[in-house]
Amino acid sequence: MSNRANNFRPTVHGARLIEDLATFASFGGRQDGGVDRVAGSQADLEAREWLQQKIYEAGLLPRTDEIGNVFGRSPRAEWPRLLTGSHTDTVPAGGRLDGAYGVMAALEVLRTLDEANHPSAKYVEIVGFWDEEGVRDPGTGGLVGSTFFCEKGYVQNYQSYIELHIEQGPALESADVSIGVVAGIVGIERYAIDVTGTANHAGTTAMNNRADAGLAATTMASRVRDTTTACSDRLRINVGSIEFFPGSPNVIPGQARMIVEIRDPFDSVLREAEQKIRLLADETAASEGCHASVQKFSQKSAVLFDKGIHRAIREIIHNHGGEFLDMVSYAGHDASVISKHIPTGMLFVPSVGGVSHSPAESTSDKHLIHGCQVLLDAVVALSSDRS
Amino acid sequence: MSNRANNFRPTVHGARLIEDLATFASFGGRQDGGVDRVAGSQADLEAREWLQQKIYEAGLLPRTDEIGNVFGRSPRAEWPRLLTGSHTDTVPAGGRLDGAYGVMAALEVLRTLDEANHPSAKYVEIVGFWDEEGVRDPGTGGLVGSTFFCEKGYVQNYQSYIELHIEQGPALESADVSIGVVAGIVGIERYAIDVTGTANHAGTTAMNNRADAGLAATTMASRVRDTTTACSDRLRINVGSIEFFPGSPNVIPGQARMIVEIRDPFDSVLREAEQKIRLLADETAASEGCHASVQKFSQKSAVLFDKGIHRAIREIIHNHGGEFLDMVSYAGHDASVISKHIPTGMLFVPSVGGVSHSPAESTSDKHLIHGCQVLLDAVVALSSDRS
Repeated sequence: MSNRANNFRPTVHGARLIEDLATFASFGGRQDGGVDRVAGSQADLEAREWLQQKIYEAGLLPRTDEIGNVFGRSPRAEWPRLLTGSHTDTVPAGGRLDGAYGVMAALEVLRTLDEANHPSAKYVEIVGFWDEEGVRDPGTGGLVGSTFFCEKGYVQNYQSYIELHIEQGPALESADVSIGVVAGIVGIERYAIDVTGTANHAGTTAMNNRADAGLAATTMASRVRDTTTACSDRLRINVGSIEFFPGSPNVIPGQARMIVEIRDPFDSVLREAEQKIRLLADETAASEGCHASVQKFSQKSAVLFDKGIHRAIREIIHNHGGEFLDMVSYAGHDASVISKHIPTGMLFVPSVGGVSHSPAESTSDKHLIHGCQVLLDAVVALSSDRS
Repeated sequence: MSNRANNFRPTVHGARLIEDLATFASFGGRQDGGVDRVAGSQADLEAREWLQQKIYEAGLLPRTDEIGNVFGRSPRAEWPRLLTGSHTDTVPAGGRLDGAYGVMAALEVLRTLDEANHPSAKYVEIVGFWDEEGVRDPGTGGLVGSTFFCEKGYVQNYQSYIELHIEQGPALESADVSIGVVAGIVGIERYAIDVTGTANHAGTTAMNNRADAGLAATTMASRVRDTTTACSDRLRINVGSIEFFPGSPNVIPGQARMIVEIRDPFDSVLREAEQKIRLLADETAASEGCHASVQKFSQKSAVLFDKGIHRAIREIIHNHGGEFLDMVSYAGHDASVISKHIPTGMLFVPSVGGVSHSPAESTSDKHLIHGCQVLLDAVVALSSDRS
């Protein structure tokens, strides 16, 4: 491959990308601008048929695997290939960009490279993963198509994976930066904390003679944020639910239950936070004469993406004079599954107001087109390394 | 009336009292020793028939008023009369003593005085009030029979009221004292506190960019005890329920609701505590960027019993060499209703473990008999003042 071929920079067709996104949003499209396209629904099946047709019309080769992942590649494709894409399903009453944007942008990138007869076109394959959201069967925990792709060993045929996605948070918008280079995905752990005291009459029981599980639980809940965020300023924590039993105005709560969720890019930080949570639960329960039990009932390990890919993407953006934000994703993606097998990277574009999984989900056309161009630049840089 | 007649001290028949209590407990009696005798139930109707029969057999005159209150007096009764008694109904799965003890003891007192031809017998009337618990129609708030008795003006015919009851708390048992002289009944107020913040993604929303209604609410709940009990060491407070909305592990709570109940013998203290609650709600909500709304949805004013009666009862116990505890009741009683119309006093006997409204409710025979004797002594002292 000549240097000349690698050095010219094809430009994505912005209007075509925006039009494809609009068309794709019509599959399961809602009156309020949102999308209902749960995996396996009629809207989802039609959308994936349309995607294969679109790949075919571009002179590329479409393919669907056994589970429903849709692929597209050049007729002249060679191994090894870089894979890029995202998922095509939505949550109920979801947005038009989550997942779909990464797939439409991948199509636009491969189409542009192929049309320009760019050498990278041979080394790029695109994918629309099946059932990332896990709405069809919540027991799967989502990421169904990408997990199948990895478990079947198909992932081993690829040299790397890169996924473009909307941020789903406000960081890029707040910083007024149009691209985020994602270093990894946070680990997410959930804990059920049960506090046991003694239910008793709220009038006749003296204040100093109580084992108030409610008081112990609320004291813990009010302190757990500061206690755990002291581990790292990247750590995020949420106490999403709390309940007292029996829950009557005139009965001292004999039991209380709360759910605590923590997220951090580093498993070591999660381990430290877990220790602090357990210690705090014991201490606040004991201080009210109660007992606490802490159960970790859900755990997704933190993912750190490939450092080489991360560096290469930063360099290509920098070389083109672009701005970017180094960031981590606090939400899960297909990239987290694939990164356990091959070098993987992710790119984010801004989400207006940080809103996602909602009809109000939005990103400006300018940012959508710019993100697609950065994906193309990254794909060229990463595939040319090996070509 | 001669001094001689007033100075001899009839003694209650302890075994007869205990037997009557056992028989009365058979109306609605449960396998576990508890009692189901909700006002208006078949067990309640039979129990009140039995009570009238028992009054009649003692050579006294039974009577039921329009609502179901059962009265008993000497055939030689004169006005003014001192009224003594309590209620005959129970909560579902209640105990055998709550209410019933005050009625059976009143019967034993009048019967003893009448048999002894004691001059006080003419000035004493006994009562078993209808529907104190309010289970039949919770909308009444209970105290149905005594409220009817007062609203109809019947109460005005009586010079005073004295009620003997089990404590329903552990104070007497803890102090190892067999009689409590009750100075009043606490006021009880209930507040619904709603905190409004902003529901958001628990992962993608930065910690410093949240309006976490759950955190604001638990911080408030954890501080409200110390904040309000600083007003008075008699104040009792309970946060009996708390709930987050939407209540999902991965959503920052946008709303939270808790119920706070406070009790104190002095309305002035309740006013001060209310101010502190409102201020604390505002402050803790504001510190998390949230808004708090505090609604008082229930209020029962504090009751202070008649000081003259309180003093007279203390003197008579003291003169007989007995020990007593000065106390307030943290639970409501028929006496609270009646005290708004005529001079009223209350006596407590110990409750084993402070348990009440439960099949496990218990008081030793010794304490039950002693309490009945103190009631007799008090009735004699109070009726002789006026005879």
